[in-house]
Amino acid sequence: MIQIGARNMQNYTLLRRVGRSKLPVLLKRGMAATLEEWLLAAEYIMSEGNYQVVLCERGVRTFAQHTRNTLDLAAVPAVRRISHLPIIIDASHGTGKNYMVTPLARAGVAVGADGLMIEVHSKPEEALSDGAQALTLDEFEQMATEVRAIHEVIS
Amino acid sequence: MIQIGARNMQNYTLLRRVGRSKLPVLLKRGMAATLEEWLLAAEYIMSEGNYQVVLCERGVRTFAQHTRNTLDLAAVPAVRRISHLPIIIDASHGTGKNYMVTPLARAGVAVGADGLMIEVHSKPEEALSDGAQALTLDEFEQMATEVRAIHEVIS
Amino acid sequence: MIQIGARNMQNYTLLRRVGRSKLPVLLKRGMAATLEEWLLAAEYIMSEGNYQVVLCERGVRTFAQHTRNTLDLAAVPAVRRISHLPIIIDASHGTGKNYMVTPLARAGVAVGADGLMIEVHSKPEEALSDGAQALTLDEFEQMATEVRAIHEVIS
Amino acid sequence: MIQIGARNMQNYTLLRRVGRSKLPVLLKRGMAATLEEWLLAAEYIMSEGNYQVVLCERGVRTFAQHTRNTLDLAAVPAVRRISHLPIIIDASHGTGKNYMVTPLARAGVAVGADGLMIEVHSKPEEALSDGAQALTLDEFEQMATEVRAIHEVIS
Repeated sequence: MIQIGARNMQNYTLLRRVGRSKLPVLLKRGMAATLEEWLLAAEYIMSEGNYQVVLCERGVRTFAQHTRNTLDLAAVPAVRRISHLPIIIDASHGTGKNYMVTPLARAGVAVGADGLMIEVHSKPEEALSDGAQALTLDEFEQMATEVRAIHEVIS
Repeated sequence: MIQIGARNMQNYTLLRRVGRSKLPVLLKRGMAATLEEWLLAAEYIMSEGNYQVVLCERGVRTFAQHTRNTLDLAAVPAVRRISHLPIIIDASHGTGKNYMVTPLARAGVAVGADGLMIEVHSKPEEALSDGAQALTLDEFEQMATEVRAIHEVIS
Repeated sequence: MIQIGARNMQNYTLLRRVGRSKLPVLLKRGMAATLEEWLLAAEYIMSEGNYQVVLCERGVRTFAQHTRNTLDLAAVPAVRRISHLPIIIDASHGTGKNYMVTPLARAGVAVGADGLMIEVHSKPEEALSDGAQALTLDEFEQMATEVRAIHEVIS
Repeated sequence: MIQIGARNMQNYTLLRRVGRSKLPVLLKRGMAATLEEWLLAAEYIMSEGNYQVVLCERGVRTFAQHTRNTLDLAAVPAVRRISHLPIIIDASHGTGKNYMVTPLARAGVAVGADGLMIEVHSKPEEALSDGAQALTLDEFEQMATEVRAIHEVIS
């Protein structure tokens, strides 16, 4: 799968190029992108023939300082109303803090997201990058159990 | 219970006055309040002897236009870390749209909130105010079933 | 003159009370207030009979970290279009940093504001509060010379 | 001159490519970019050997609805403190409205910017794009007279 990062959400040359690929594309929402801009970016990819686009909400930039970004979970029902594209939640970049990842992953599934992006590391303290937001394998297993149960509740 | 609305979160005279009441106080987060400012507002109440304070996240003001406010669910784990106060989610004002209330209510419970505030009306189309974000009685019953099940999962 | 601070811009009881005063009122813009909310707050005052209201732009809360608040100078021409009320710029609270006060004061006059609010202290390092954003008397004199000249240019 | 638009401020491949050009580069600030991110983007260009970089503040995205973007004029003194790069103000995109362009252009010069970007059209009502924010030739001439006089005041 090809990932288009938040900083490149409006790099139209890149969007059109991955639109000519056969690989599915994960399109992260830009830091200050409206839903319209995000879906329009997806259109750039699809207009070249690649319809395998997955949207990823990873938080927007606000005044709030207790997280790296503010996860906008209302984007999930809002996108559902106007698009058929699947949408997932990046609970790791969306918070930037290990202890918030599992609660927000649970919330992401509960709000109706089609999937999660979670950073995991066997030894987060030795991670080359983003160790502060990585789950250990044990934490991941616990999280997976919880989100699976929540998914069953809402199905 | 006394509710202090978002617009009055930093009305210090009012905060001190309800601090001298025997009634519990629901303290809504200001539209652009940091967690520090919010908890400091709670301190104004408690410094007068009233410790029955409940925090209520009701969304913050951002550039996003698909909701009335952007619900900042990460505030729940963040507040947990630094305060003993209970915290609830207002999924009605926090979204402003009927069809988003149930998904965000589920997310609020999943992220670990201690409660929900939900507007309900037997005939939303006849509501004197905020009808656009009210649940019907049937919708509320369905929501209650779902959030109860999610609450069991995470307990 | 009575000053209503940003935190009290929507304290409607207070607004109505100062509306019954004979004193002029300085109404600061709330940290996340739209122009409509700000002018509506002014209406609360005027509806009680006090028409001597002066608006004060003092910056809004954004993601930007290089200032305490982001001064929204476009509010000046925007308010001019829809209101007869005078509007001034608080270049001290609007920036929070001494070295930015004079440039933003000049910009405030250049954009068409009717006045400025500037904090001055004979010895800023000994100020009981807000010393970091105070001008010395010499700095103030220099600023006053510059803004007077700019005011002449645009008159 | 090559212009890097706000949407491409963090398109690192493009930044490095223009860094190998001999042409000067206008680097617009991203819609939600901090000063650090903006200056780091300039470093990507300069690290390839092209030191002719001009920064352009064109407004950031906030909750405010009376302008297309919120011009952050405090960025000018802030950038001056930490960088030698020239910085200009885009008063057209930064406001999106014809009647705000001249006041904000004056403010931009008054705050200390090294230049302005202004959209002009002989017949704005016939412009293929951005006509709503274009000045007529007469308006531009008047604006130029005013900003020249302000520039003299602060020199």
